[in-house]
Formats: sequence, structure tokens, C-alpha cells
Amino acid sequence: MSLNPGNGMELHEYDWAQPLTPDAGEEIFAFAARIFPICRSITGDGVRQTLREIGSHLALKVHEVPTGAEVFDWTIPREWNIRDAYIKNAAGEKVVDFAQSNLHVMSYSVPVRKRVSLAELKEHVHTLPEQPDLIPYRTCYYADDWAFCMAHRLLQGLREEAYEVVIDSSLETGSLTYGEYLHKGETDEEFLLSAHVCHPSLANDNCSGVALLMNLARRMVGLRTRLSYRFLFAPGTIGAIAWLAGNEDKIRRIKHGLVVSMVGDGGGPTYKKSRRGDAAIDRAMAHVLRHSGLTPTIEDFSPYGYDERQYCSPGFNLPVGLFQRSKYGTIPQYHTSADNLAFIKPQHLLESYNVIVKTIGVIENDAVYRNTLPKCEPQLGRRGLYRGVGGKDIAAENMAMLWVLNFSDGAHSLLDIAERSKLPFEIVLRATRLLEARGLLAGGSLALA
Amino acid sequence: MSLNPGNGMELHEYDWAQPLTPDAGEEIFAFAARIFPICRSITGDGVRQTLREIGSHLALKVHEVPTGAEVFDWTIPREWNIRDAYIKNAAGEKVVDFAQSNLHVMSYSVPVRKRVSLAELKEHVHTLPEQPDLIPYRTCYYADDWAFCMAHRLLQGLREEAYEVVIDSSLETGSLTYGEYLHKGETDEEFLLSAHVCHPSLANDNCSGVALLMNLARRMVGLRTRLSYRFLFAPGTIGAIAWLAGNEDKIRRIKHGLVVSMVGDGGGPTYKKSRRGDAAIDRAMAHVLRHSGLTPTIEDFSPYGYDERQYCSPGFNLPVGLFQRSKYGTIPQYHTSADNLAFIKPQHLLESYNVIVKTIGVIENDAVYRNTLPKCEPQLGRRGLYRGVGGKDIAAENMAMLWVLNFSDGAHSLLDIAERSKLPFEIVLRATRLLEARGLLAGGSLALA
Amino acid sequence: MSLNPGNGMELHEYDWAQPLTPDAGEEIFAFAARIFPICRSITGDGVRQTLREIGSHLALKVHEVPTGAEVFDWTIPREWNIRDAYIKNAAGEKVVDFAQSNLHVMSYSVPVRKRVSLAELKEHVHTLPEQPDLIPYRTCYYADDWAFCMAHRLLQGLREEAYEVVIDSSLETGSLTYGEYLHKGETDEEFLLSAHVCHPSLANDNCSGVALLMNLARRMVGLRTRLSYRFLFAPGTIGAIAWLAGNEDKIRRIKHGLVVSMVGDGGGPTYKKSRRGDAAIDRAMAHVLRHSGLTPTIEDFSPYGYDERQYCSPGFNLPVGLFQRSKYGTIPQYHTSADNLAFIKPQHLLESYNVIVKTIGVIENDAVYRNTLPKCEPQLGRRGLYRGVGGKDIAAENMAMLWVLNFSDGAHSLLDIAERSKLPFEIVLRATRLLEARGLLAGGSLALA
Repeated sequence: MSLNPGNGMELHEYDWAQPLTPDAGEEIFAFAARIFPICRSITGDGVRQTLREIGSHLALKVHEVPTGAEVFDWTIPREWNIRDAYIKNAAGEKVVDFAQSNLHVMSYSVPVRKRVSLAELKEHVHTLPEQPDLIPYRTCYYADDWAFCMAHRLLQGLREEAYEVVIDSSLETGSLTYGEYLHKGETDEEFLLSAHVCHPSLANDNCSGVALLMNLARRMVGLRTRLSYRFLFAPGTIGAIAWLAGNEDKIRRIKHGLVVSMVGDGGGPTYKKSRRGDAAIDRAMAHVLRHSGLTPTIEDFSPYGYDERQYCSPGFNLPVGLFQRSKYGTIPQYHTSADNLAFIKPQHLLESYNVIVKTIGVIENDAVYRNTLPKCEPQLGRRGLYRGVGGKDIAAENMAMLWVLNFSDGAHSLLDIAERSKLPFEIVLRATRLLEARGLLAGGSLALA
Repeated sequence: MSLNPGNGMELHEYDWAQPLTPDAGEEIFAFAARIFPICRSITGDGVRQTLREIGSHLALKVHEVPTGAEVFDWTIPREWNIRDAYIKNAAGEKVVDFAQSNLHVMSYSVPVRKRVSLAELKEHVHTLPEQPDLIPYRTCYYADDWAFCMAHRLLQGLREEAYEVVIDSSLETGSLTYGEYLHKGETDEEFLLSAHVCHPSLANDNCSGVALLMNLARRMVGLRTRLSYRFLFAPGTIGAIAWLAGNEDKIRRIKHGLVVSMVGDGGGPTYKKSRRGDAAIDRAMAHVLRHSGLTPTIEDFSPYGYDERQYCSPGFNLPVGLFQRSKYGTIPQYHTSADNLAFIKPQHLLESYNVIVKTIGVIENDAVYRNTLPKCEPQLGRRGLYRGVGGKDIAAENMAMLWVLNFSDGAHSLLDIAERSKLPFEIVLRATRLLEARGLLAGGSLALA
Repeated sequence: MSLNPGNGMELHEYDWAQPLTPDAGEEIFAFAARIFPICRSITGDGVRQTLREIGSHLALKVHEVPTGAEVFDWTIPREWNIRDAYIKNAAGEKVVDFAQSNLHVMSYSVPVRKRVSLAELKEHVHTLPEQPDLIPYRTCYYADDWAFCMAHRLLQGLREEAYEVVIDSSLETGSLTYGEYLHKGETDEEFLLSAHVCHPSLANDNCSGVALLMNLARRMVGLRTRLSYRFLFAPGTIGAIAWLAGNEDKIRRIKHGLVVSMVGDGGGPTYKKSRRGDAAIDRAMAHVLRHSGLTPTIEDFSPYGYDERQYCSPGFNLPVGLFQRSKYGTIPQYHTSADNLAFIKPQHLLESYNVIVKTIGVIENDAVYRNTLPKCEPQLGRRGLYRGVGGKDIAAENMAMLWVLNFSDGAHSLLDIAERSKLPFEIVLRATRLLEARGLLAGGSLALA
């Protein structure tokens, strides 16, 4: 088992020597599929069950924050749980059944049990008229309301008759639940990896992100890293806010971070930079994406999206970006029943995984070296580092050595050099290791975060 | 009557609440038409008559600077006036008559009354061979010379015979005249609005600019503004120089400025930045133009054009840009008899007016706020500021609130936020007012000029 | 004889008044043709003979650095000389003859005299299978090896038989030779012009560069210049390293520099910036190229190429760029027998020469002036500097005066103004001379290097 991506990033300080095989994509997919059926919300047993699944692979620390607790401007709401829900027609047939899809009930719907006319029912139904076969995903966390979500085509087929509507839910004093896993590195400086666990059966958004991070954390066990890695599995918005409120003393340790969601489809990848825009994570991710062979889009920060909204609020301004494949809100499957297990693929999960691991590799290894023979080029040929016969071409390896020697002046880091030379970081790093082994480079002090 | 443009900028501090209707374009056009026939030059009664027309709407202060006065490197020239001019052919018919068009005489022509051959006449004639039906506009302010300007086709039809040429002009000790109107605001900081009044019957260049600024000044009467607004109606170059020479003590008050000319045609708009290039006026105007729905061009400063040449000379370096529709010198009507009342339209005058007023709105309202709850997002929903049901879209109004909250960190002004979010300033401002009313923003100290 | 290029740069401080005629291109070509047949390497009599040819036109100072001398990380190798070489077939016919082309022997081949099979011969043959009629250029400076270079078509025609191979070369204790010429200017600040002299019969690479610099140096004799100009004719890499090692005390004087190679073909021009990227030479060359009427490419520094690799090594970081026509390695003639005298043209040599001289003109004349009348524009008309009659156009000369006056504020140099106005430096300079003569400019302190 290894952190190493399939095509070339070698993190020499680590034991991560074996490339990830396609099996790893299958593994991530399998875990996403396992947690897909669970009905999650921002509180309740669905979150707990999801965290238990993660905990069966990882020493996850689960936290409960009680209803009524104040977390910055917010208050932890009552805990919501749901057992069953349906709509029965006059003939007693279930025309909508929560057991078929947990999207059928608007999340945080108050309990209901009554007989309604079609007209009254329609006031409590959400559909997607332009996608008439799909069930929408809807929530009403902070409003006393209830609704069913269904295919528009189904709604159109309902006759004028009396319906029995039942939502067997509860809203009670309880708690909000989140899970944390800390991989300790050589330093207290932290890399935050955060995935939301509050969506019900939406495969890409965010069973995919949860599964990817669980696998990453699991593969890190026992590995030596420079940074510490904090994995956070929390409900969106209120969960991230609760975590920030409870950990203000530790927040200054976070030097890099990624919010991970929607990483299983074949779009993008899409990287939204941190509010800072030039943080190490922004530069490292952009570099890796440019050399990924995929078709990335890199966007500036905007204050809408996932939990980067909280991490990048002005009072924290953490260097945390958002990594996705397709961008939220831009694809027809988004927040509908079409975001199911058929929509995510092991291959895409693996690609996403490799991009994140390569980005970690850049952050772990970026450093500033000093050329020990800075006047003129050192003679690489007599050290066996250079092709002896002049010709037309020069290999990327040779070029990487020349770049590293020329710009290792104490002012440029390896990532600076990779960016300037347009060479992949791993080739620059390999050249650095060769030159360092021959005494041509010294230093290796860490680049500024 | 109101300063407010037609589509949405609301300057809440002011009473400028009603949108400008198309009538306002007609009003501006009517004033341009009224002053169009007057024969203006850099001195003389044409300027005085023009200022009297402005003064009939506005408490304009008229200044006279005597011939011979030294203004920096220049000397106020003798005053030029003209009563009549014509060319008669041998049959005694007037082939050119000043009464038909005041462009027929080169401005500042010395008096002439003599009989000349066709050959001699041609030495004192300007035409446009490539635009044979148009009369060119020419001047000789600082040379003892005289000339007629006429359609090339007319010149070609003149026979070899004796002509009587008469220019009944005078060049005598007198003065240069300019007018000023100051709208006092809450501070002494000034916004300079300057239009040249030295061109004879050229409608766009610059009856349009004079009429626009007269209307703007008139509509400001009685309004509360933060800045003071200085309107200057002066002859080009020598008039601006005379004003600068006479007001050196006040010049440090000028924090923003616009030279306004050629604002009635359907081209552009064209904005030429101040010499500084990043002054508040440059940024505000660029922002408004980008959201104007027109097809603007924004150019860097160059030292040729209108009176921004003087305001932006290195000894002053004032933050003054040039606003036009079509750029000077780029259209066939420029400085010809085709720049007549048919060339300018009420609709274009109104568009130009609205761009300038919106720009003033940005300058008046740009300020730096502080998010009072900077850690995580405040809960907008419980304050009725946010849509409660999750869905795919988010309205610009919601986005504006998120942008303002996220970047109100004491370092970004509302214009910074409007630029970064690509939202129109007025939407950012409206969100700011809402958030401020709920106590979520504080401060509102003015952005640096 | 004059340094002045053909179309307009007038260096007023100098006697360089007459434009260079096409004859100058012929002169440069003639010298390139004269040194073309010589068999050069990084050491040996070929370099000495080349320097003698240069020395017949110029007071060249020739230096010998002995075998075994340590120059930074390198050691001067044994001296290589070659008298004859051939391959004879079984019938005693010379199938390859060094006398026909000095490219036939890999440079620094050890002496050989033996009979070999075709198979054994092939282990010591370089060809270009994709350019089967051309002889490649190959070297093995720091390896004990030998080889013949030949047309691939010739190799394919060789039968299976015994061959006599003879390389009558020697590798002995001797020295490395380079030549220097210093044109003394008014200051000790130096402009380095460097051409490699180590390639055998390759016309463009670098007989062209050597001939251009020899001509430039010769035309400078007796001229007054602000800077001193150091011309260096040295073997590539090891020669530049030897020069740097022997002149560390003088290196701080070098304020500008160009490596000159491949300047006779019709491609490019190509300018590779110094490592600094914004050195005066980088800006001056880019400016001249943009106005050259040619189709230039300007590239960022990279640590592969010619001797800018050494000058721009991090321990020196000199402001030295590389000027070429076609970029090295990008054309089929590169390092082959097709880089012959038919490949270079007098016209291209002259164009290259003029670009370099104009760039020197910018560097020599760039300075910061102060407008003596900075408030408003000075009245150019009464000084005879401006056209009196208003019209549509304004000549570049008038515009240049306005630009120089507006930006001569003590902060902008003439090159800054030329860049900002997009006017050629020579027009800006001419306007500066006119304004200075009328007392409208003062100062003229040199721009920072």
C-alpha cells in the first residue's frame, strides 16, 4: 500500500515507493458505494453511521456538539432524525416512498401525518420541471417546514384526490457530530483536508470526497511526513463552523488546506484558489494540474461554494482551496437523484487522488537550496551527470539540473524553479536529489509557506 | 429633476431618487442647439455670449484675464472678434459668406479687405480634398495670418478672375473669458469637471460637453454631496492654463476630475486615463463603463488631446481623465462642418450623462467597511437576508452580501470588491446598506482617493 | 566608416554620422568567409589562426591559459591539434577525407591509425539518418574517444571490407587561447560583447558572430563613447569560464552584455534575456527589436545555450543576453555541414549589425531629464517647435516632444518614455535634443543601469 501516484512523483523521504494501481480507484469507489445509501443531514444518526464506517478503517475521533451550543454567530440546531415517510393515494398505494430514495424528503422536514388535497400537497412538493425524471435535493435546516421532493413527471400524473402524507421524523435536543483524524508529522504545522458529510444519497457530492480522504488518511498510517495532516469529516457550514469555534487555539497551525468534494466525475478538475490567491497550496495545486494531462480550470476565490467559505472568512483567512472535478452547480446531475453511483467512476476517483497526492508531494518537498559552485556551471560531465557528446537535443533531466543549479541562489525554491522552467516538480526534485548527492547543492531549507 | 441615471444607481445619501427620463437627453440637446450658432474662439464675445447662456441657468462666476497677462509660459493674446467676412467674385456675388457658417474664416484671422487673383486667394484657403463637400475648422491663434475655409468642390468651381476678400475682424487689447461654478459639498475636496468653450459651430466638439456639464451642475443645486464639484467652462489650452495659473493655491484640493468633450455621438465611449493611470477616477470610470452595456474603449494617458494635457502636466499631475464618445481625430466629422446638430442625438447625450453620474456615484460612495463578525459567515438566514431553501442558483444580491462580508476586512473598499466580484457597484452598495443596517458592517471610512 | 545603422539612429555625441551602406554587410561576410575554412576547436592552432585574422584588423590582446590550469570547477584540457584524417577502403581509395571537410572528424578525437572491419568502423561513425546528405558536427572534449562524421548516404554505401582509419591528431600539454579587445570609453563601466571561436567550418555558428563583432570593434576605433566596450573572442564554455576565472576583479564593471552567435541567417531575430530579465540590455534590445521591421522573438532566460550560461550563473548574474537570428537547435542546418557560406547573407549580417548598434545607441543615450517648465505645457509654437495651424494630425516629432516634456519629471528615462509612447528611441532622443537646446529640459543624468 502506498501513497504514490501512478506516474512518477517519488517522495524520496518516504516509504511511498510503489505506484498506486487502478485497484486503488476501485477501493475508493467501493467505500463511496458503501456509504451512499445512508440518509445524512447536518445532524443525526446518518452522520454517526457514516463516521462509524470511516472509523472502521481509521482511528477516527468523533465529537458531539450539543444542541443549543453557540458557535460564533450560529447555534447548533436540534438534531434531526427520520425513520420513514411516504405519500399514499386514495387507493392506499404509496406514490412516494422514502425507502426508495432518501432524497424524497426535504432535509429537516418537521414530522407530518395528515390527509391533504392535491392542491395542498403541491404546496409541499419540490420538482425539477426541466429535468422531469429527476428528484431534487432540498433542505430547510433553519425553517419549520416540510416537503417532499419528487420527479416532475410523477407529480403531473397525480389525480385530484385525497392523499395521506407521513413524515416520521423528529427534531429534538441532541447534538451535531463530526469526525477528525490527525496524522502526526515531524512538525506541528498542519495540512487540513476537509470533506462534508451532510448530504444524503448523492454519490459525487460527497460520498466521493469522503471516500477519497478516508483512503488517503489510511494510506498515510505509519508514514513519515514533514507536516501533520488533519482530516475533518464534518457537516457542511455548521459543522465547519463548529470545528473552527472549538479549535481557535489550533488554527494558526494550519499552513495549507483543501476542501474536497465532487471528485468522482470525469469533468474538470476545478481548483478554486484560497482567498489569499498566492498561498503555497494555490501554487502547488496549479502546478500539478498544469502537468496532470487533464483539462483543469483554475479559478480565483469567491465567497460561495463549500466550507472554504468558512476557512477563508476574513477573521481566519486560512490558505485553503477547493478541489473538485466538475464545479458545483454547473452540471445537470448537481443536487439531483442523477448524482448516483453510476455517475462516479473508479478511474476519475484515482485521477483525483493522484492530483491531491502530487500536490502534497510538492508541499512536502519544496525547499530552497544553494548551489555550492555558483560561479560558472560545475562540470557535470566528469561527475557522470551529463551527456558527453554534443548534439541537437538535451534531455529534460539535463535541463532540470541546469535550472536547479542556476536558480538555487538562496532566493528560489524548487517550486519557483519548476514554474519558471515549466518542468514538472518531480523532475526538478529528482535533479535536485542527484545534485545534492554529488555535493553540488546545499541547504534545502524549507520554502516559506 | 434628479441626477439619477435611468437604470439603477441609487445614491442613498442624496435626494437623487428618481431616474432620469429620456426628456433629460432632449434637454441637454436643446441647450447644445441653443449655443451651437455662436461664433466662439479662445477670446472674444462668442465666449461671453456662451457663458451668458450657461449663466441663465446657473450662478456662474465669469472671469476676465487681460491681454498681456502672463500665465506660466504663455501670454494672454489680444482679443479677437469678428463681425462679417466674405469672398465676392467679379460679378459681385458672395461665393463664401461668414454669415452662412462661422467655420468659413480661420479663427484669429487678421482683418483683410482687398482684391486678389484666384492664385493669391488660393494661398489663403483651406479645404479638405478628400471630403470635398465639407468645410474644415482651422485656427491661427499665435500667427499673424488670415484664411478662408471652404468646401473643396466650391474652390474647384472658382474661375480665374479677381475676387474681393473681406474679413471684418479685430485683434485688440481685451481679455480672455472663462466661467466657473462651484457646487459646495461637505468637504473641500474637489471633483473638477471641465469643458472647452472655444470652438465655433461644432456640435459634438464641444456644444455637447458644455450642455452636459451645465445640466449636471444645474441638477446638483440643492443636493448634499460629500465632495465639492467645480465646473469649469474655459477656452481650450490657454483658458485651462489661465485657470491653473490663477488658482495654484486651490489645486491641491482637486482629488478627481474629468475633461468632457464630444459626448453626443453614438461612438465609444472612450475614456483616456489620467497620467497616474490608477487614480480613483480611472478605476471608477473603467468600472462603470464595463457595466454600461455600451462598447467602451479605455486608453492609457497620452500627452495629446484636450485640457487633460494641462491638468496632467508633470508639475500638477492631477487625477483628471478625458471622457468622450468617439475619440478625437478618429471620425470623419471631426473638425469639419459635418460636426453639426444632426451628428449628435439626445439618446447619446443621456447615455454619456448617465455614465458620468454613475462614476460620480462610485466616487461619492466608495468606502472601506469592517465585517463585525469576521470569523465564519454570519447567519444571514435568521436575519431575513438569505434564501432559506438550498438550490442551484444564488441571486446576485446574495452573492454581493457574501462578497462584501468576506472582503470588508479593513483593506478592501467597495470599489475593490465590485472589481473583484465583477458585480456592478450599485449592487455592492445596496448589499452594503443592508448589512450595515443589520449591524454586520461598521466603519465606512472613505476609500483613499 | 561609421557605426551608424542604415535608417536613422543618430548618436549625436559621436562622430558616427554616416549611415552604414550595404557594403558593410559585404565586409562582414568577407571576413566570415575568410575564417570559415579554419579547423577550430576549444584549443589548438585553429583558434590561434582565427585570432591572428582578427588581430590583423584590431589591436587584439591574445591570452594563453596553460593545460592543467584550474578555472573554477574546470581544468584546462590538453591542447588538441589535427593535421590529417581519412578512411581508406580496401582498394586504397579515401572514402572520407578530412581535407574535404573538417567536420569529418569528431573534435578532440584521439589519434588513430589502424585497420578495421566495417562493423568496427560503424561504432566510430556519426551520421544524421534523417538528413542523409549532411555531415554532423560532433565533439568529445572530455572523453578519450574518436569518431568520424559523415553523410548517412555515404555510410550506407560502404561495403563489408577492411578499412584503414587514420586520425593524425595530437593531445598534448599546451594551452587554451582567447583574444580580447577593449575600446576605452569615458567611464570604466563596461559593455561585454562575446563570441565563441571554437567551432570549425560552421558559417553561421559562429563565423558570423566573430565577423560582426570584429567589424563593430574596428569601427569603434577612435570614437568617443560613454561606456567601455570589451570584445571577447573565446572558445565556448571553457573559454568563457577561463576568462571569468582570470578576471574576477573586473567583473563588477560589466553593466551590460551580449553574447553574439548565428547572426547571418534570415531567421528571427531571437533575443534571450539575461537572467535578470529586466536589465537595461533586455529592455533596450526589446525596444530596438520591436521597431526593427523584422520579426523578432524575445525569450526569457533559460540556462541552456551559449556563454550566457556562464555569465548568468548565479555567482555572477551578469546582465548579459544572447542575440541570434534563428535560435540555436531550431533549424535543420544547425550543427551540420549545411551551415556553410551559402547559408549566411550580407544583408542579414547587416541587419543584425544594425540591431546591435541601435541597442548600443539606446544604452549610451538613455538618461533622465527634467522639464524646466513643468506646470502646463510650454508654448512650443513661439519657439518654432510646433506646427501653428490646428488640424487632424500631429507628427511623430511633435508627439515625441509632448511625451518627453510630460514624462521628464525626474523619474522616467528616455527609454521609459520610448516604451510608454511606443515611439522609436531615436525619435524620442531627437526631440530631447531639440528641447534641451531650447532650455526646456535640464539634467540628463544617466539612467540607472
